This record gives sequence, structure tokens and C-alpha cells, in this order.
Amino acid sequence: MKNDIKKILESVKNGEISVEDALLELKSKPFKDIEYAKIDFHRKVRQGVGEVIYGASKTANQMIGIISTMLENGQGSILITRLNEDAAREIKKIHSIEYYEEAKIGIYGPLKKPNGIGKIVVATGGTSDIPVAEEAALTCEFLGNEVVRLYDVGVAGLHRILGHLDEIMSASVVITIAGMEGALASVVGGLTDCPVIAVPTSVGYGAAFNGVAALLSMLNSCASGVSVVNIDNGFGAGYTASMINHMEVKK
Amino acid sequence: MKNDIKKILESVKNGEISVEDALLELKSKPFKDIEYAKIDFHRKVRQGVGEVIYGASKTANQMIGIISTMLENGQGSILITRLNEDAAREIKKIHSIEYYEEAKIGIYGPLKKPNGIGKIVVATGGTSDIPVAEEAALTCEFLGNEVVRLYDVGVAGLHRILGHLDEIMSASVVITIAGMEGALASVVGGLTDCPVIAVPTSVGYGAAFNGVAALLSMLNSCASGVSVVNIDNGFGAGYTASMINHMEVKK
Amino acid sequence: MKNDIKKILESVKNGEISVEDALLELKSKPFKDIEYAKIDFHRKVRQGVGEVIYGASKTANQMIGIISTMLENGQGSILITRLNEDAAREIKKIHSIEYYEEAKIGIYGPLKKPNGIGKIVVATGGTSDIPVAEEAALTCEFLGNEVVRLYDVGVAGLHRILGHLDEIMSASVVITIAGMEGALASVVGGLTDCPVIAVPTSVGYGAAFNGVAALLSMLNSCASGVSVVNIDNGFGAGYTASMINHMEVKK
Amino acid sequence: MKNDIKKILESVKNGEISVEDALLELKSKPFKDIEYAKIDFHRKVRQGVGEVIYGASKTANQMIGIISTMLENGQGSILITRLNEDAAREIKKIHSIEYYEEAKIGIYGPLKKPNGIGKIVVATGGTSDIPVAEEAALTCEFLGNEVVRLYDVGVAGLHRILGHLDEIMSASVVITIAGMEGALASVVGGLTDCPVIAVPTSVGYGAAFNGVAALLSMLNSCASGVSVVNIDNGFGAGYTASMINHMEVKK
Amino acid sequence: MKNDIKKILESVKNGEISVEDALLELKSKPFKDIEYAKIDFHRKVRQGVGEVIYGASKTANQMIGIISTMLENGQGSILITRLNEDAAREIKKIHSIEYYEEAKIGIYGPLKKPNGIGKIVVATGGTSDIPVAEEAALTCEFLGNEVVRLYDVGVAGLHRILGHLDEIMSASVVITIAGMEGALASVVGGLTDCPVIAVPTSVGYGAAFNGVAALLSMLNSCASGVSVVNIDNGFGAGYTASMINHMEVKK
Amino acid sequence: MKNDIKKILESVKNGEISVEDALLELKSKPFKDIEYAKIDFHRKVRQGVGEVIYGASKTANQMIGIISTMLENGQGSILITRLNEDAAREIKKIHSIEYYEEAKIGIYGPLKKPNGIGKIVVATGGTSDIPVAEEAALTCEFLGNEVVRLYDVGVAGLHRILGHLDEIMSASVVITIAGMEGALASVVGGLTDCPVIAVPTSVGYGAAFNGVAALLSMLNSCASGVSVVNIDNGFGAGYTASMINHMEVKK
Amino acid sequence: MKNDIKKILESVKNGEISVEDALLELKSKPFKDIEYAKIDFHRKVRQGVGEVIYGASKTANQMIGIISTMLENGQGSILITRLNEDAAREIKKIHSIEYYEEAKIGIYGPLKKPNGIGKIVVATGGTSDIPVAEEAALTCEFLGNEVVRLYDVGVAGLHRILGHLDEIMSASVVITIAGMEGALASVVGGLTDCPVIAVPTSVGYGAAFNGVAALLSMLNSCASGVSVVNIDNGFGAGYTASMINHMEVKK
Amino acid sequence: MKNDIKKILESVKNGEISVEDALLELKSKPFKDIEYAKIDFHRKVRQGVGEVIYGASKTANQMIGIISTMLENGQGSILITRLNEDAAREIKKIHSIEYYEEAKIGIYGPLKKPNGIGKIVVATGGTSDIPVAEEAALTCEFLGNEVVRLYDVGVAGLHRILGHLDEIMSASVVITIAGMEGALASVVGGLTDCPVIAVPTSVGYGAAFNGVAALLSMLNSCASGVSVVNIDNGFGAGYTASMINHMEVKK
Repeated sequence: MKNDIKKILESVKNGEISVEDALLELKSKPFKDIEYAKIDFHRKVRQGVGEVIYGASKTANQMIGIISTMLENGQGSILITRLNEDAAREIKKIHSIEYYEEAKIGIYGPLKKPNGIGKIVVATGGTSDIPVAEEAALTCEFLGNEVVRLYDVGVAGLHRILGHLDEIMSASVVITIAGMEGALASVVGGLTDCPVIAVPTSVGYGAAFNGVAALLSMLNSCASGVSVVNIDNGFGAGYTASMINHMEVKK
Repeated sequence: MKNDIKKILESVKNGEISVEDALLELKSKPFKDIEYAKIDFHRKVRQGVGEVIYGASKTANQMIGIISTMLENGQGSILITRLNEDAAREIKKIHSIEYYEEAKIGIYGPLKKPNGIGKIVVATGGTSDIPVAEEAALTCEFLGNEVVRLYDVGVAGLHRILGHLDEIMSASVVITIAGMEGALASVVGGLTDCPVIAVPTSVGYGAAFNGVAALLSMLNSCASGVSVVNIDNGFGAGYTASMINHMEVKK
Repeated sequence: MKNDIKKILESVKNGEISVEDALLELKSKPFKDIEYAKIDFHRKVRQGVGEVIYGASKTANQMIGIISTMLENGQGSILITRLNEDAAREIKKIHSIEYYEEAKIGIYGPLKKPNGIGKIVVATGGTSDIPVAEEAALTCEFLGNEVVRLYDVGVAGLHRILGHLDEIMSASVVITIAGMEGALASVVGGLTDCPVIAVPTSVGYGAAFNGVAALLSMLNSCASGVSVVNIDNGFGAGYTASMINHMEVKK
Repeated sequence: MKNDIKKILESVKNGEISVEDALLELKSKPFKDIEYAKIDFHRKVRQGVGEVIYGASKTANQMIGIISTMLENGQGSILITRLNEDAAREIKKIHSIEYYEEAKIGIYGPLKKPNGIGKIVVATGGTSDIPVAEEAALTCEFLGNEVVRLYDVGVAGLHRILGHLDEIMSASVVITIAGMEGALASVVGGLTDCPVIAVPTSVGYGAAFNGVAALLSMLNSCASGVSVVNIDNGFGAGYTASMINHMEVKK
Repeated sequence: MKNDIKKILESVKNGEISVEDALLELKSKPFKDIEYAKIDFHRKVRQGVGEVIYGASKTANQMIGIISTMLENGQGSILITRLNEDAAREIKKIHSIEYYEEAKIGIYGPLKKPNGIGKIVVATGGTSDIPVAEEAALTCEFLGNEVVRLYDVGVAGLHRILGHLDEIMSASVVITIAGMEGALASVVGGLTDCPVIAVPTSVGYGAAFNGVAALLSMLNSCASGVSVVNIDNGFGAGYTASMINHMEVKK
Repeated sequence: MKNDIKKILESVKNGEISVEDALLELKSKPFKDIEYAKIDFHRKVRQGVGEVIYGASKTANQMIGIISTMLENGQGSILITRLNEDAAREIKKIHSIEYYEEAKIGIYGPLKKPNGIGKIVVATGGTSDIPVAEEAALTCEFLGNEVVRLYDVGVAGLHRILGHLDEIMSASVVITIAGMEGALASVVGGLTDCPVIAVPTSVGYGAAFNGVAALLSMLNSCASGVSVVNIDNGFGAGYTASMINHMEVKK
Repeated sequence: MKNDIKKILESVKNGEISVEDALLELKSKPFKDIEYAKIDFHRKVRQGVGEVIYGASKTANQMIGIISTMLENGQGSILITRLNEDAAREIKKIHSIEYYEEAKIGIYGPLKKPNGIGKIVVATGGTSDIPVAEEAALTCEFLGNEVVRLYDVGVAGLHRILGHLDEIMSASVVITIAGMEGALASVVGGLTDCPVIAVPTSVGYGAAFNGVAALLSMLNSCASGVSVVNIDNGFGAGYTASMINHMEVKK
Repeated sequence: MKNDIKKILESVKNGEISVEDALLELKSKPFKDIEYAKIDFHRKVRQGVGEVIYGASKTANQMIGIISTMLENGQGSILITRLNEDAAREIKKIHSIEYYEEAKIGIYGPLKKPNGIGKIVVATGGTSDIPVAEEAALTCEFLGNEVVRLYDVGVAGLHRILGHLDEIMSASVVITIAGMEGALASVVGGLTDCPVIAVPTSVGYGAAFNGVAALLSMLNSCASGVSVVNIDNGFGAGYTASMINHMEVKK
């Protein structure tokens, strides 16, 4: 951004642009396409990996329009999260997206080749957590990461997680996804020395309080290196994990 | 109780007692010493193991009086919970109690010989949980149980708990005591097939909310056979565990 | 489990299996069928009493497959909890299960003969608590316990519970199930000297907060020997009660 | 009040007072001594029984001043609630009040002769609830009611409450005061057919949440005729009970 | 009840009944029809005013059966609360009940003639509170009270409540019903010197939290003589108000 | 109001009206049409700008009646909030209202000409907040304010809000509307020196708790000049903003 | 700000400053004294009325330093909030501030002459709310407003507030401050047509939950024109009220 | 760990160790020093960077002992968190630690040379957040990271954070620390494309609820790449940030 501002100032100095135009640009810079940004991008992905649309509060038509605009702007790959089946069907009539029903994710264009530091492990406590896990896993894959899925490895049957120690200990980042008591994050956090991103899910009943029990459990994890995202926020976990897994590449 | 009522009725029939006296007895039976019960007994122990005084809201003088009355009534052993050091010192001037500072427990008279089905394991997630654990352990010992203490075996270092699999798997009952995320109950519950009593503790800070995080975690345990008592209620856990550990003896 | 590990090690020593194979086995042992465990077992029952499937988050087809696999593995009796009517109908086309509509429970194969220490009393505060009570009662019966049902004995009409003092005082374990103010647990806990497992239910309205009022009430019970499970968790209470009722048998 | 307004209007008509004066009176009527009311009266008692001062947020000097003003206005009896010992000592130097330490109540002047419909029973679950109970009981007595105290009759020992059925069933109003699980209100509500006023107390620990568990329990009471006041609000319960106990007198 | 027990004892003494029969009776007495009571009576009305059925969790058939049994037992009037329209239609085919749609109340038989001390005022903050108010008002009328309805007199337009000062100040009991901020209870409590029963309603949105805001507001009322029932519990308020309004009659 | 009362009193003095009539008027004054007010006006607009109907809990027929009555009373413009589409269609058959679907607002008659101090900016964090924003914006316009809409200017893309600094810094009042973390209020509050009214919305999932996260965030805003209304209360914000924007006009 | 940027750009064009210097300025503009801002200003007052220091988390020495710096920068008046007595005494040794003990406010220099649109009324429900009210009132006075104090006018004694209708109805802004049930905001909001700023206070006990009951009550006010600030935030209310009261002046 | 197990198995095969010894080792491996681990390590740091002691619940003597043991085991650097001043003074008598009062951290031995990918920015919203920030910053520095401190850059004065865009945009990881409304995380998350770790602090009053408002705000951040740790958990944030900043080094 510093360079953007500098360039504008130099153009002013050189008389290439008027003060008024520079003023206008400075107000909208270093971010271009302000009008475009007003189409809700939800969580923008800036480093050349593709764009993301948060589909929850959009009509099929709105999303079709956004995709069209993105494609016109040269975007090759697009990720749509929280996309329901009906909207996906509508979009498919115009744009050839791949729809992943369990994850409620739609993807336009090819996935990026994995180019991260290592593998990202996505582990769940139970089978009911899989939709959130798939949102996380597909987000990681969309952003260029190799993903290892370890589903239904809850701590009440320790053998299930211990049987996959290799994968966990060699992971670059682990995303642990669990509802109910959410203990998976602490156990995994104690078994590995890579960053662990914990996703509480709304799975459970009664005193699970739609994910609050798991959320509190994860925030209080006695294992180091565990950080937490919002309940059911698979995308957020996947996005953060990808950021971490691309640390060395970025520099 | 049925027999008590029957006996009273038969005495009426036989003219051994008047209708008025029977009425009086029926009203107060099958529980005697109503006046005495009005001295707060807190959690009464009825099967010949000794009496319990909940010391939290009593002055040293009140407790001295209660102990005296108990002794006069032939009670041999008395357990005082939530007893602070100052009150303990005062009581000692009159009655020769043993005071356990960490557990805040005072005991008059000899502990009962262990006569339960097996051993009760008392396990904690961290060192800060030990005061609650000692309240549980001493309660168990007072009520005639052999106790195995496994302290600081939190799940963030699984080796600590796995290193004691033998004790856990051969226990009659396991009391798991943990603050913060309270995951110990689930992990232990998955490793053993005996009843597990979970005690959340108020250990932790921030989103631990004085034990609420651990409480919710334990209530949502995905392991079977786990039941929960109030936050920091070591006595309640010990008492229940002792009941279970004396099941075969009772019959 | 200790023996399992020992056997593997001795096989290595004897050259019966290679180091690599032993490594593999150790990783998956002492629990076999890891792949199988990945099919969500929910709350596993290990001591020869039968298997349990948590039906809430599974399709009829998934459950049919799990049952088939269980039967192939020699399992004779299977309990399915939280099974809705539609799924039950589908399963019945393939496997001859008995469906209990009120409890939302399906059972394959014969119930185990009662072989516990004594009887388990299942008591409810009102009629609305009966579905949870039936989940508890049928779980107990499936696991080999004799059950006494005392429904609608809420404390606002003390005569109802006092009229069944005999059953309560002679029980091996009492499961008290109540919504609204959940006072039943304390009253029963004061009337009996066996362990009491309290199940708050989501019955009630307004400040009942879907079971939270009853849950807090039960956690704060002034009666000793009361422990609590999650809101509406009839299965968990039944499972724990059965564990306790089989204490002497187990040894 | 209707008559007050009418009288003013008639005085205007008759020319006895000017329009301006009437306007002034109407604004302050039917309540006189507006300036005086600005001294916080807390909960005003209007029907000739005496005045009440809420002492919690007042200095001894402020209270001395208020009492003096009240006495000058012909008030014969004054009740001061939430009065701490130090302030009581200061007040005593000027005004001869009686101080009740446990209830934290100070009373100036004689108690009113009991003139209610019947007796008010004040019952507590435990001994720790007694301070709140005494606030309620003394308020009742100050307002002219006969009070029967039944302390430490918690439901975990049903015999304690059943042993006093006579008092409870013949009461005009029952005030039930309990912390922890607050079940006393429901049990008493089921035993009597008079109005029951429930007071949750902040007694307890952990999931008692300073009276919230008892409050919710009481609000969800399955017994009819139970209404609830704020946590620890002994005065409010006593005041309401007295109102009810003077129903027939009032007419 | 005392007399019941006494009579049984005397019969034993006189040899009129056997010890066994007396034992049986004592267990079920002083409450008869135990089996009958097991049909959920919800909130029983004992003083000859009629019976109450809580319809929320019952099928039409169950209620038809209960009504039949009641009629056979000589009950002349029956009140059914929380009765939905469909069930009402079914019941009408067998028993001629009057159905009040807004209140969701069904009544069999004639209302009792008003015979209370005075009138009960039922006041609401808004029009949305009327269903709860009608539940309260009809309950009062069923139990023999004259009711004055003051609907939509919320405090944001004080004129509305001040315009009805006469009714409020001459009431025997006032039931104030309000959602949102629930301030009506305090304002009314300050205007009258009769008992005020406050009913928070689930009316409102956002931070009204389904009645919690109003509930807390009412519990903290700075007016004396205000007690509170559960959110939306019109029946409970009406029942309690009727109790109070019949104080003098009862004696 | 003072003048109203004075006028009545003078009429009494002059014998123009009887004491009885004056009494009646005084009770209903300074607010006329008491009966009419009993039709829920929700939030009354008194200064000649038009009337408001809160449509959430009213049938189409009820609203038609209220509008008719208003028109008969000379009201020229009427605002209906929380009006669903079906009811709007019904009302249109009788009264020619304009229906704004997104805002769920219906307006009868012409909007008032903008006559405020300046412009009111309505800013939202995302597109999902727009329905609440439109409720606010249309309310402002109905009440005679010029509105600048800045939608989807959430703080995660600061350029979006910074690109509109001019509008924000020259606004008379800013209404900031946001769900999720609600940070917009603080950022805007720091950028402008006019009053900021913050509206939390129920947009979000998981730990957004239906607007609670945004509500708390806004209440804790570290920017000065920020005040808050209820979750999703666009009308309330618009109404208050209009009040402020007409300050100079009013005097 | 627009002009600031423009001026810098023109200086670049004119060669008056280098591109590098412009870059630097643009980064720190339009806000000067960045280093200075790092001294926590808390809530900055920009329109020439004086500066504010939030004293809660600062040592006397830190505050002395900040005041010195402010004075050196030509600041004439300084407001210090949440200033405890000890720190005030220390500051007074160096700077001659006026200390208001009840409000915990210190003021350096003269108050600004009132120059607002009208008067600001500060009303409290009880005497315990006065410290928060004084924080609000002194803030208003510091910022150039005439303040009318109406203390202890809670709604349980309506005459108290009705007796001051004149002041309330002629106010420019009303700040209502109340703990417990917080009903004052709704009643005042219904009596006036100026903006009402509601401040919940932490006054109360039990279910007042340190101001939460009042906060919820105020957020749900059924009166229009009411907005809310944080619990006990007298300063925030005063600051916002002053903003509103200077609307016409500002233009 | 795989290799550890393999080595043991090969030793068995080679007859180097007995089956019994192997069994013992397997049980305690791959973690040695089980007894030692029972001294609460809190959050263990395994990759050669030094050890950590959680000082909150330990006496000075306990910590002296642990440090001694660590030193004997060859540990060169030790970090003690939550260390109060008194304990620090005691420890200093035996071990030469450096004590950082604001951060409540003690460090034995030299800090590790920074060898991470880049710099870690530690930013706070206000000055009151600095103690938590220092805990984070010193933890980072102890673990071999270069730290840039940006304190008091809260969003209510955007210039403060925008003036440091360079540092933020070039950071490897940003730790944002804020109480009150916690908006800093979202704003920073939108300005940078590196991982952001958010730490809510307990700074604030009223509806800040000791950090809950900031916690919820951060969990709901609309910026991608933001994950959250427990309230006031500066250590956890620093530890996780260091893990991420050493990603490339680790491989």
C-alpha cells in the first residue's frame, strides 16, 4: 500500500494527474473497486488464491451476478460457502460450479495445487461434525493445501486418535472440530507441537447449548498452541490454517 | 420404614400406646431426633459409617456443640467439611480432631476400615484441583474406602494418564476432578468401564467462568457412565462413590 | 489391555510376528476394529451386554449397515437410541427390530436376563417426562436390569412419592427424571440411601429455559448421593445405573 | 385520590383557592410531602402501620435525619432494613432503636399488635437462610402479624417439614426461604392451600450461582399458589405476606 | 390431614380395620385416589372450586378420559389450560366444554359465582400480552372472582394507566402482565396498596430474550407488595390471586 | 400539559364545566382519546409528523381499522412497521399504502419534506443488515429527514468506510447497524463528532448469539457519543435520530 | 479532513514538500500528535470544549504528566473521570484541580459557559444512583450545558416524577439513571418528546445482576426516543447529551 | 514417537530387554520423566526453546524446587508466568531470575536469539491492556521472536492504528489485545494478510462482563484469519504466535 500512495504522489508531482483526481484515488486507494467491494465479499482472499463468497444471505441471482463480475475481472477460481442446494442448482445453470452437498460449498474453477509447508490435518470428534469439517477441508484444498481427514476420533475412545498419531505428529497445522464437550482440541494439542485451530460445533443437545460447551472447553484448553474460531466456522479455521501453512512461501 | 409404621400401628392395636402418642410418633417417624436434625446435618450419613457436619456456615462454638451432642448420642466418628483453620483450632481445644488443611476437613475418631468392593481412584487434571480432590479422597476414606490418588494427570499430556492405565482400569469407581476444560472425565470415561463421577472445579480464569466451562464439558461427555456433581463438590463425589463402592456389602 | 500388549511383545520375542506388524498392531490395539469404530458407536458397551447405536445423526441406511456389520461380528443384541419412527420403519424392512415409539428406541435381539444387584427405580416428576424415562428404563432393561417405573410422582403432591416409599427405599439405584424445578431428585435423595442419578428434562416453559432450571436444581441438591447427567439424557442415566447395579457381578 | 381531586376542584369553584394554587396542589396531590419523599423511602408503607427505611446505601447521619423528620411528622414506629452494625450503633446515640443483628434490622418504637387474618409461617431450607428469614419475620411482626418460625426444614430430610404439617396447613400465608436447589417452595406449595411466597437466597456455591438456581427452581414450581420475590429479599416477602394477611381487615 | 390419620388410628384401635389395611391407607392417605392423581392434575384445586387440567402435553383422548373420570367423581366444573384448538374440537365431541381461543382455555360446567373479597384487576402493558391476560382472567373467573380487565395500559403512555386509577386503587389484587421492559408492575405497585402479582410475558424481540428482561425487571421492582410468577404463567397468577381474594372466606 | 390543566381549572371557576366533568377530563387529560389509545399505538409520534403502527402482533383487519380511525381523525401520513407481505396485501385492498418489502414497512400518504438540521447517515456492516437499515432509513424519511445510505462498509475492509469519510464527517447523526462483532459503531464513533446511534442486528451465527455479541460490543464502545438501541430495532434508531436532527427546529 | 489531504497534495505539486514527506504526513494525517494520542485520551473531545482523561487505570503521576502536556499544548480546561480521592490529592499538589468526591471527577480550569440549545435534565430512580448521575451532570456542565438535577424520582412513587413534569417536558435532553428495574426510562420517555439517554446502574442486589436487569429493561423500553449507554457510564451519557444539546450551535 | 516404539520392539526382539521391561517402557513412552511431569508444567515447550512454569497456583518454594530440578536436567532458560512480586523476591534469593513486574513474568537465563520467519506485532486497544500484552510479548521474546509493540492503538482513534500500517502489514503474525468492545482484531484482520491471534482482556466495566464482550466480538470477527484465545491469556497467544513464526524453521 505504501507504494500505491507513493506512486500517486509522484504522479501528482509529475503533473500526470490533477490534485482532484489524486484526492479521489487516495480516498479509494489502496483498495480498488470500492463499488465492487460493496458486493459482500464476506472474507476476502487477497493473495492470488481465489475469491470467496459467503452464500448464506444471498439469492442465487445475486451470487450469479457476483461470479460473473469476478470472472470478468480475471478471477479464475471462486469459493462459495454456506451455499444451499437450491441456490447451487440455480447457479449451475449459468456457471459450471462443483457443489459439495455435505460441506454446502460450491467451487468454480480448478483447485490450487498444494504448495504449503506441509499437510493440514482436519480431525473431528464424531460423525455429526463432518459437515463443518468438510467446509474446513475444502477451504484448505481450495487455497492450495494438502488435507488429511481424520473423522470420528473423539476422546472417549482414545485408540481412535492414538491410532493416527503419525498423521497428527507430522502435520503442519491441525484443525480439531468437535461439539459436545470439545475435548479433542486439548488431547490433540498435547500430542503435537504444531498450531492447533479448534472449531466448536453446534452438535449435541441439552447442556451443549448449541456449541457453547465446546467453545468454552476449547478456550480453556490446557494445551498450548490452541486457538479458537466461532462455532461451526469451518471456513475460518481452514482459511487461518492455510495462512499458517503458507508462511514460508509468503516471505 | 414400613416396619416402623407397622410396629406403631400394632402398638396402637395392642393398646400399648394411645392414639395421640401414635399420631405424634407417626408424624415424626421414621426419622427420630427431629429437634436434633434441626441442627443442620448437611448431608446425613445413615449406614453406620459416621456423621457429617457441613462447616461452611457454622461458628466454632456451634460445631463444638454439635460434636458434643453427637458424641453423647454414641457417634464414634465425625467428618467436618469446609472447615477453616481458625475454627479447627478452636474445636481442637475441646475435641481431639485431626485437621487436614488442604482439604479443609476435620475428622474426629478413627477412619473406618476399608470394606468396599474395590478401590476408588481420585484423579485430577492439575495441581490446583488437589484441594477438591483431597475433600473427595478423605470423604471416601472416612466412609471406609481404599483410595488411589492420581493427581495432575490432565489430558494435555496424555502420557500422564496413560501411565496409570492399570489403576484406572482396575478401579471400582473413578472420581475425575478438573477445572478449565474438564476433558479428563471423557478421557477417563473412555478408558474404564466402571462408573465415573466428574467434579468440575473453579480452577481457571477468563472463560472458565469459575467452573462453568468444566461443568458443561463434563455434562456433555461423550463417554458413557459419567455423572456429574456440583462445582468443587468433592464431598458429594466422595459420598456417592462410597455408596457405589459399597453396593455388594449393602445387600 | 495390559495382556494384549504383553502378548504382542511376546510374539515379537518369539519371532512369530515382525517388528513392523507388531508396530501396526500396537498402534491399533488394545482396541480392535479401528475402522469399525469409525462408524460412530456413540456410547460403546463393552462387557458382553450388547452394542449401542446413537441414531440421532444417522440415516436409516447407515444404521442398517452398522447393524449388519455388528451381526456379522457376532453381536446378538443391539440398542438404537434417538431413533425416529421413519428410520425405524426403514430398518425393520431389513432387520427385525422392536421399536418403542415413546422412548424413540429400537432393540434388536432379546433383552438380557436381569442379573443386577437389585432393582432400578425410574421415577418422573410428571407425565411429560415419560419419554426420557422410557429411554432410561429400556436402556436398563436392555443391559440386564429389573426396572420399577414410578411416573408422575412430582413433589408438589408429596403423597404420590410417599405412597411408593417401599419401592424407593428398597431400590438398588434410583433414576429421578424431572423438568421444571427438578425438586424430585432432592426429595428422593433424602428418602433413600442408594445412589440417585438425576436427569433434568427440557419439560417446562419460560424460566425453565429448556431444562436449565432443573439442571441447576439437581446440581445443587442438598441430598447426598445425587449425581447428574445431561438434560434429557435418559440413556446416560440408564447406562450409569446399570453399571452401578452390576457392581458385585463385575468383580 | 378521586376525592382529593374533587375537593380541590370544589375549592376552586367556591373560590377558596386560586387556580394557581390548585394547579400546584394537583401536581403534587394525591401524594403530599413531595420534598420529603425525595428522602429515599425505599418501600413506603401507607396504611398506618409505620414507615420503612432502606438502610443499605445510607450513612448513619442520613438515617438519623430521616428518623428525626419522621418522628416530627408523627410517625410512631419505624423499620430500618439492611442496617449494618456500625450504623446501628451511631443511630442509637440519638434515637432508641432496637437492633436485630442477624436480620440486620433496626426498629424504632413498639411493634404493632398482631391483627391479621391468621399466622404467617416463615420456613427455611437450612440454617444459612436464617438471616433472610429473620428479615422477613421481623418485617411481618413490625407490620402486625403473628409469625411461626420453621427453620432448617429442607426437603432432603422430609421428616423435618412433615413434622410441622400442622403449622403449615393452618397458616394464613407461608414464606419459604431457600438457597441451593430451592425445592422447599414446591413441597410446601403442595402441602398447603394458602398463598406461598418464595424467597430464593444466595446460599450455596458453584452452580448455585448466588441464588439463581433457587430462583429458577421457584419460578418453575409445579405447585400452584407460589409466587416469587428477588433473591435474599426477605423484606419484600414479609411485606407482601402482611398485605395478604390483612386482606379481610382492609375491607 | 391430622384428623384423617387420627381417624385411621382410632379405627385400628377399635378393630374396625386391620393393621395391614391401616398401613395401606396411611401410605396413601391423607390423599386419596392415588392412581387417579397419577393422571397429571398439574395444579390441583382443592377447595371445592373445580378441577384443573394442564393440557399442554396431553392428547385429546387422554383429556377426554380425565374429564370423564372427574365427572364420575362428582366434579361439576373443570378448567383446561394450554388447550389447543384441535384438541378442543375433539373434546367437544364428547364433553360440552366452552373454548376460549385467545386464552387457549376450555371450561366444562358453569363458572363459580364471584364470592371473593373484592375485584381482581388484570392489567397488560400491550395488546400482545392479552392471551396471557385472558388465561389469568378466566382462571380467576372460574375460581369465583370478579375480574376487571385493563388491557394495553403500558407505562410509556402513563395516561392510560392513570385514567384507570379508580379501578386499580379499589382492587383486591392486581395482576400486571407485561413483556419487553415489564415496568408496569412497578408503576402499578406504587399506585395501589393491594398485593400485585406480576407476570412477565415472552412478548418482545432482541434483548427481551423471550421474557427474561421483563422477568428481571419485575423481580427487581422497587415497589413493595409485588411478587412474580413464571414467564407467560397466566394460570399461576390467576390461581394465586384467587387464593388471596378468598382469604376472608377461607377462615 | 400545564396549560391544559390550567384551562380546565379556569373553566371550573367560570362555571363553564361542572366539577364532575372536570374530574373526568382531568383523569383523561392531557391525553385525549383514551379509548383510542387502547388500540396499540406502539410508539406514538406527537409532533405533527404522522402516526406509527407497530404491525408485528396485529391482524390485517385490526390495522385496517386503526388506519381508518386515524384518517377520520385527520391524520395524513401513517407508518406501519414490522408489516408482513400478506397483511400488506390485505391492507392495500382498502387503503392505498406503499409497501417496502425489505424493510417490512408500509406507508400511507406522502413522506414529510426533509426539514432537519442536516443529513442522517445510515451505515451497515454487511448486506445482511440492510433490512434493519431500511427500517431505520424509511422511518427517518417518513419523519422528515434526508438520509444517506452507506451499506456494507464493515470494518474488516476499512477502505469501505474510509472511502465515505466525507458523508460521515458531515452527517448530523449517524446510525450504525451491524451484527457479528458490531465494531462499526466504535470506528464510526471515532471518525465523527456527531451523535452515533448503534443498532445491533441478529445477523451472524454461533457465538453471535442472535445479536448479543454486537449488542455488548456496542455498549462497550470506546468511542464517545455512541448510544445503543435494542437488537434489530431500526425504527427506534430512526425515530431517535430524527428527534436529534430536529433539535433546532423544535425550539 | 478532505482539505487537509488536498493541501498536502498541492504542496507536493508545488514542490513545497517532497514526496517522502508527503507520504509521511498522509500516513499520520488528518490526525496530528500521534505520539501524544498514545497517552490514553479515553474519549477525546475535539470541538474546543476541553479535554478528558479517563482516570481509572492511571497513576497520579501519569495523570500529572498528561495534564502538564495538555497545558503546554494550550488546553485550558481538563476533565478527569473515575478519579479516586488519593490520586486527586496527589494531583492537587501540582495542578489546581477541583475534586468532586461523589462523582469521582476532577476538573482543571473553569467550566464552559452554558451555550446549548436548552437544559439537560439528569433524573435518577433512587439516591444510590446519584454518583453516576453526578458524573453525567458534571460532564454536561464541563461541556457547556445547563443541568437540572431530579434525583430520587423512581416510578414506584409516580408523584415524584409527575411533580416535575414541567422540567421534564421542557428539557432539551433527559438523562435517566436507574438501577434495579430501570423503569424510569420508559416512563420519562413517554412523558417527553426530547431524546432520552438511559443509563443503567449497578445499584441493586440479587437478580439485579449488577445492572443487567436495568440494562435489559432500558433496551426494551416501549417508549420511543430512548437510547442506552453502558452500565454506570455517566460520562458517556453526559457527553452524548451535550452533543445533542449543541446540535444547532454546531451547524 | 513411532521410532521410539519401534526401537523398544527391536530391543525385545534382540533380547536386549525383557518383555516385562518393554511393557513398562511402552506404558510410559514416548514421554519420559512421568514423575517429573507430575510437577505441573502448565504448558510445556518441547522444541529446545526452554521450559515454562505456570506460577499462579504455586508457592515460591514449589517453584524454587521445580527450577532446581529443571536446571539439574540441563535446562538453560525458564519462563515463569503469573508470578507475583512476593514470590519473585523469594525465588531471586536462590535463582537469579529477571522479574518483569507489569507482565508478572520471571525469566531465568538468556532469551533465545530471534530466529523466526519475521516479526510478531503485539498491538493493544488501550493502555490498560498492556500487562496482558507484555505477557504475550515476553513469551514471544523468550521463545526466539522479534517483537514490535504497538500499544494504545484502539479503533476509536483510527489514526493510531493507520499510522502503523507498515509494521502491521509487514508482520509475520499479529497479536491483537483488547478489552471493552474488542474491535481491534477485526480492523487489524482487515489490514493484514498474516494470521491474527486475538486476546480479549478483562478490561472494562458494566456490560464488558470481565472480557466476555471482547471475547464474543473477537469470535465473531468478520475478518478472515483471526483466531482467539482465552480472556487475558497473553502467554497462550505468544506461544501460538511463536509456533507460527517458526513454521519454516521447524521443517
